Amino acid sequence: MNKIYNPTPETWSDILERPTKTVDDIELTVKEIFKEVQKKGDEAVAKYTSLFDGVAIDKLEVTKAEIETAVAAVSTELKEAIQLAKNNIEKFHAAQKTVRVAVETVAGVECWQEKRPIQKIGLYIPGGTAPLFSTVLMLAVPANIAGCKEIVLCSPPDKKGNINPAILYAANLCGVTKILKVGGIQAIAAMTFGTETIPRAYKIFGPGNQFVTVAKQLATQFGVAIDMPAGPSELLIVADDTAVPAFVASDLLSQAEHGTDSQVILVSTSKTLIDAVEEEIQIQLDALPRKDIAEKAIANSKLIFVENNQIALDLINEYGPEHFIACTSSDDFYIDGIENAGSIFIGNYTPESAGDYASGTNHTLPTNGYAKNYSGVNLDSFTKSMTFQKISEVGIQNIGKAIEVMAEEEGLQAHKNAVTLRLKAIKDGK
Amino acid sequence: MNKIYNPTPETWSDILERPTKTVDDIELTVKEIFKEVQKKGDEAVAKYTSLFDGVAIDKLEVTKAEIETAVAAVSTELKEAIQLAKNNIEKFHAAQKTVRVAVETVAGVECWQEKRPIQKIGLYIPGGTAPLFSTVLMLAVPANIAGCKEIVLCSPPDKKGNINPAILYAANLCGVTKILKVGGIQAIAAMTFGTETIPRAYKIFGPGNQFVTVAKQLATQFGVAIDMPAGPSELLIVADDTAVPAFVASDLLSQAEHGTDSQVILVSTSKTLIDAVEEEIQIQLDALPRKDIAEKAIANSKLIFVENNQIALDLINEYGPEHFIACTSSDDFYIDGIENAGSIFIGNYTPESAGDYASGTNHTLPTNGYAKNYSGVNLDSFTKSMTFQKISEVGIQNIGKAIEVMAEEEGLQAHKNAVTLRLKAIKDGK
Repeated sequence: MNKIYNPTPETWSDILERPTKTVDDIELTVKEIFKEVQKKGDEAVAKYTSLFDGVAIDKLEVTKAEIETAVAAVSTELKEAIQLAKNNIEKFHAAQKTVRVAVETVAGVECWQEKRPIQKIGLYIPGGTAPLFSTVLMLAVPANIAGCKEIVLCSPPDKKGNINPAILYAANLCGVTKILKVGGIQAIAAMTFGTETIPRAYKIFGPGNQFVTVAKQLATQFGVAIDMPAGPSELLIVADDTAVPAFVASDLLSQAEHGTDSQVILVSTSKTLIDAVEEEIQIQLDALPRKDIAEKAIANSKLIFVENNQIALDLINEYGPEHFIACTSSDDFYIDGIENAGSIFIGNYTPESAGDYASGTNHTLPTNGYAKNYSGVNLDSFTKSMTFQKISEVGIQNIGKAIEVMAEEEGLQAHKNAVTLRLKAIKDGK
Repeated sequence: MNKIYNPTPETWSDILERPTKTVDDIELTVKEIFKEVQKKGDEAVAKYTSLFDGVAIDKLEVTKAEIETAVAAVSTELKEAIQLAKNNIEKFHAAQKTVRVAVETVAGVECWQEKRPIQKIGLYIPGGTAPLFSTVLMLAVPANIAGCKEIVLCSPPDKKGNINPAILYAANLCGVTKILKVGGIQAIAAMTFGTETIPRAYKIFGPGNQFVTVAKQLATQFGVAIDMPAGPSELLIVADDTAVPAFVASDLLSQAEHGTDSQVILVSTSKTLIDAVEEEIQIQLDALPRKDIAEKAIANSKLIFVENNQIALDLINEYGPEHFIACTSSDDFYIDGIENAGSIFIGNYTPESAGDYASGTNHTLPTNGYAKNYSGVNLDSFTKSMTFQKISEVGIQNIGKAIEVMAEEEGLQAHKNAVTLRLKAIKDGK
């Protein structure tokens, strides 16, 4: 662990630097697979599934029977946990619904804004050892509340050609309309172009490895929107002597177990707390099954001492963490002052894992400093805002002159003429 | 003009195809200029301004004295028009403010969502013959309402080293914090990396030519967000015999004068209306100063007859127009049923130019079919949504078990442990 005392602001950007990866090599592979899926559809999907997942899939779409088998295979305990999480996610995202915003800007000029669902949504859920069924909840629940018509889910099959039962269970529970056994680049390509079996999506959501990330970026060049750019997961904690060192250590470690490139930062106005957390980390680390991963991430972690809360806040806003835990005697100061963070966790009894699973907030959040300019996934991520206007004869008389003057000044005579004609018709009593 | 009668749904995608441009050639130039601006800052900006705009600029930042001169140069008539437009844009965008969404998902688990401003905004306003001061209003007004701290505007200088007075006037009126005489690729690069004089932006907004469009796309690879991908402007009108043919023709022409690649489509359930509009277009076309441009766009335009409103609506939703005018006896049917459109204009007295300038709605809208998955610029475009959660001892006892079960199932033991430690501490009365 790197302990840093009172770093000067000029050094912050170096201290807070995130690991960057080059994607040039991957890009070529991704482009090639996109081209082939665009051209050959399911045939190409099958080819790459066989190549990358090592399994030949006859039928890409998961059947009703397979879902029933999965439902039976999931324990009651897990079902109850998923149901609790789903309820909370539903409550929090349903509360984000907005009403039509209507304004008569001047007499006779009615303007309104409405949010309407994006019709076709694609969800990507990675496979592998950690089946991320929690991400199914985080994406399918708000997509359903938003009213998206098609919610397609792609997830890679295992060697036996199956998707993890918990993923199938969650997808079925949350109203996914079609589940497909396809992963990686070929899944993103298929949702971008559509194939015989896999429908095209207007917007693709979900995490993935580097290949999936680059594939999602490429998809945007073909008219598809994506949830957000992705990077390694991050946690920054600000804590003082009111924080329980063991809790702080456990949160840092829960971030560290994600991957060796996870970003783990503690900022504190207390050297005592920093030392106590350091000690606790060592104690807890030994008991973890993913110790090897966590240990490497922890080795790169930073414990930063600063003189006061204002300096801490400035540093945190410069970093813009994905997850931000505030556990201090001045939590309100941080709540009010935080400008750049994905999701904020407050106090000793709010671990990051609460937001990862069950508090109700979304866990799909901006990493890599994107908290400065991107929202985490929320209900609006599944809608687009549209505006409407209806102008009466009185209305066009109220704003017509202004439009004529501005259009003329911008050299757009036909824009002006569209108003002039109407004003004349009203004057002439037509 | 191409008149098409009763096209079958299989032919829609061909009929509605948009012109696509290749950007491969441009991309190399853009990448090179980005590299140089990143490395050499203002020096590189000056070099390319000299090269592309043909003028040597001593001082990139517009001075207070220059703004005062511009304010004096703008006519009272135009000032009044701009003020009226600004008032309406302000009213409509201020009404889009949302309150904090707070939910106690289960007892002791408080979750809330807040929107906070993106701190640093960059606006790009093209130069040339048509000074788009209206776009300054459309971007700076909501940025100000959102509370963005830095609103930087870049616009290319003319041969004398000046920016159009109406642009300066509007920028000053709408609270732009810094105005810079820089255009094209070098402007976007400068706002992406920051230079000695030009501040870095977290999100870049605004229209531009192909070079600017490709530069904005490239900017996203360096952590900058952009308003939306851009394409040629589009208008689709659905009209029946209740529409005034001269009005419909004037709207089609106001779209056509934007550029030879503008997309202009009329859909109608009336052959009489189609013929009448065609005739009116010829009459009005001759009087336009931008006749050459409009004529070419009109030559590519489409007048499509369909049997009934449902077919028309399906076709329109398949296209997803940037601007959509509905002028029929069934306007409510279209208002309710439209799924994909940027901004919707209703009735005989609502020309598109009303929304371009003064009704209050935003004119920065998704083109190229992006209405299916992107919002037009609105107040939220200048904010990001952040979530907060605060869990009490009671709260963590209510959701702790579910988190433990789910984390365990996903193989994330440290996530589980962060909860287990806290539950144990509560149990032990610590």
